[in-house]
Amino acid sequence: MTYEDVVAAAGRIGAHVLRTPVLEVAPGLVLKLELLQHSGSFKVRGAFNRMLAAGELPPGGVIAASGGNHGLAVAYAARALGARAEIFVPEVTSPVKMAGLRALGARINQVGAIYSEAAEAAAKRAAETGALKVHAYDQAEVVAGQGTTGLELMEQTGGVDTILVAVGGGGFAAGIALGSAVPPSSQEPPLSGSEASPTFASGQGFRRGRPRIVAVEPERIPTFHEALKAGRPVPVEVGGVAADSLGATALGDIAYEILASSGARSVLVAEDAIVAARRTLWERHRLVTEHGGATAYAALLSGAYTPAPGERVAVGVCGSNTDPATLAAE
Amino acid sequence: MTYEDVVAAAGRIGAHVLRTPVLEVAPGLVLKLELLQHSGSFKVRGAFNRMLAAGELPPGGVIAASGGNHGLAVAYAARALGARAEIFVPEVTSPVKMAGLRALGARINQVGAIYSEAAEAAAKRAAETGALKVHAYDQAEVVAGQGTTGLELMEQTGGVDTILVAVGGGGFAAGIALGSAVPPSSQEPPLSGSEASPTFASGQGFRRGRPRIVAVEPERIPTFHEALKAGRPVPVEVGGVAADSLGATALGDIAYEILASSGARSVLVAEDAIVAARRTLWERHRLVTEHGGATAYAALLSGAYTPAPGERVAVGVCGSNTDPATLAAE
Repeated sequence: MTYEDVVAAAGRIGAHVLRTPVLEVAPGLVLKLELLQHSGSFKVRGAFNRMLAAGELPPGGVIAASGGNHGLAVAYAARALGARAEIFVPEVTSPVKMAGLRALGARINQVGAIYSEAAEAAAKRAAETGALKVHAYDQAEVVAGQGTTGLELMEQTGGVDTILVAVGGGGFAAGIALGSAVPPSSQEPPLSGSEASPTFASGQGFRRGRPRIVAVEPERIPTFHEALKAGRPVPVEVGGVAADSLGATALGDIAYEILASSGARSVLVAEDAIVAARRTLWERHRLVTEHGGATAYAALLSGAYTPAPGERVAVGVCGSNTDPATLAAE
Repeated sequence: MTYEDVVAAAGRIGAHVLRTPVLEVAPGLVLKLELLQHSGSFKVRGAFNRMLAAGELPPGGVIAASGGNHGLAVAYAARALGARAEIFVPEVTSPVKMAGLRALGARINQVGAIYSEAAEAAAKRAAETGALKVHAYDQAEVVAGQGTTGLELMEQTGGVDTILVAVGGGGFAAGIALGSAVPPSSQEPPLSGSEASPTFASGQGFRRGRPRIVAVEPERIPTFHEALKAGRPVPVEVGGVAADSLGATALGDIAYEILASSGARSVLVAEDAIVAARRTLWERHRLVTEHGGATAYAALLSGAYTPAPGERVAVGVCGSNTDPATLAAE
C-alpha cells in the first residue's frame, strides 16, 4: 500500500465524510477532531472506502463484526448508500453502542461472550448471504480510508513533526502513516492560508519530510508494542478502560507492515493516564471522548511522550461514542 | 464602532484565545465551534480585549457581575494575565458554573436573587476598590472582542451569505456583524486554501458583500425582537431553558445601534426547538452545548429560518458550560 491508495480513498469518500477540523490548543500542538466525524469516529472513512471501492454492493449488503465504533460506522455507511447492514456484536456490547446501531437501522446479531465468537459467526453468515465483509482494520481499503485523516491533517497544518495516534488493530495509525507521508513533489505551495493558526505556517507550504508516527497504546492492550518485540503481530491479553474501542487481540498484518517499516515509535500509557486525559479533554477543551479516543492525548498529558522544544505535534482525538453522563462533575 | 475596532481586538487577544475551528456539516452549512473556546464560550474574547485595551490593570484587579459564561471568562482572563478577579453572582447560579469559577481562583460574592442585584453590588464594590469593570456585553471593547469570531469565520470560510447567531445582551451578534463586514479592499486573495471544505471555495477569495446577520432569540427572551419594535432597547421578561446564558433583561445600547443599522433580521425560536437542537448537536455532531449555545442552530433545525437554495450559512455554536449528564441517553 502507498500514499496513492489514500489519495484514491479521499476521492471516493469525500462527499460522504466530514473534513474534521483541527484545533490548535497551544503553540505547535494541534488536536485533529476526528471524534466529530459521522458515527462518532474515524471508522466511517474506512467503511465508506471499502464499500465504494467494491462497486455495486451485493444484495446481501454488508456485514461486520464489532461491538463498537466499527459496527456503528458500517451501519452508518450502509444506510447512506442504501445497503443492508448486518452487524455481529458480542454479548458485552455497551448499551450506548447497541442503541446507536439500532437507530441506524442495522440488523444486529448478538453472539458470543467475546469478539472472536461474534467474528466467527459473522464470517459464517457472510458465506451464506454473499454480503461484503468489512473488516475493522485488516483490509487495504479500510486502512486507506482511515488514512484520509492523515492527508487532511497535512493539508490543514501544512505539516507537523509528529503525530500521536492510538492503536488497537492499527488501521488508523497505519492509514495515517501512509496518508501523512506526502511525497516531495506535493510539498510546494499552493498552500497558503493554513487552517490552523499562525504557528502552522501561512504561506510556508509543507514542511519537508514525513512526520514521526507515535503509536500510543494502553499498557493493558499492547498489540503494537508486543508485535515490535516479536517481529510480527502476536495475540495479547485485552483489558482496561479502553478495551471497548482499542481491544483488538492482535495488531493487523497490514498495520504491522506499514507501522514497522515506517519506523513508528511505540508508547504505552497507564490506565489512570487515560482516565485523566479523557477528563482533561472535557474540562479544558469541551471534547467528549471515549477512553480510546483520549489515549493518544494521554501520552502527552502524562509525559509518556515529551516533545522537544519547537516540535510540532498533532494528536488524533478519535472517538466519541460514550455516555456523556460519565463526564458529570464529580 | 467599526470593523477596524475588531481588527485591533484580534491583534490584542490573538495570543490568548483559541482560533476555534469551523465544521462543514453539510454542503454550504458551517458551524463555528466557539463552544470549544477557553472557558467554554466566546465571552473570553471580549474579556481579554477589555483588559488588554486598559493597559496596566489596577491593583484591585477586575470585577464583573455574572452568574454565567461572562463570569467564567473574566475569571479565566484575569488568571491568565495575573490579575485579581472578583465576580458577583446571583444566588440562582448553577452549580456547574460556581464550580468553574472556584476552579479559576476568582473571588466569588453571591448576592441577590436576580442578576440586577448582583450587578448593583458589583458596581458599588468597584467604586470602593477601583477595579476595572468588565461588562457582559455593553462595552465597546467587549463587543469588539466578541467580533473577532466573525473575523475568523470570514477568513476560514472565504465568506458566507448568512450568519445565524444567538442574542441575549447582543454583544456576540453585534461584534460578529462588525467583524464579518470585511471591507472591499480586503476582499481579494491571498486566501487560497480554505479551512472549510470545497464548497467554501479554494482560491476564490472572499465573496462580495457583508453577510446577513440573523439574530436568533428564545421566544421567552426577545430582547432584540422587542428592541426592533420599540426602536430602542426595552426591558423584557426573562425565562425558559436558555435564561442562564441568554437571560439579559434588555439588549445593550451598543448592540442595538450596530444590529439595527446593519439590518440584522430577528428570528424567535420556541423552547422545544432549543431543546431539540441541543440534543441533535450532541447526537449528530458530538457537540455538548448549553441551551443558549444551541439556540442559533435551533432556528435552522426548526425551520424558523430556512436558507434559500445555494445560500451559504454559518451558525455560531457558542457555549458549553453545562453538565454533560443532562445529555445522557434517554
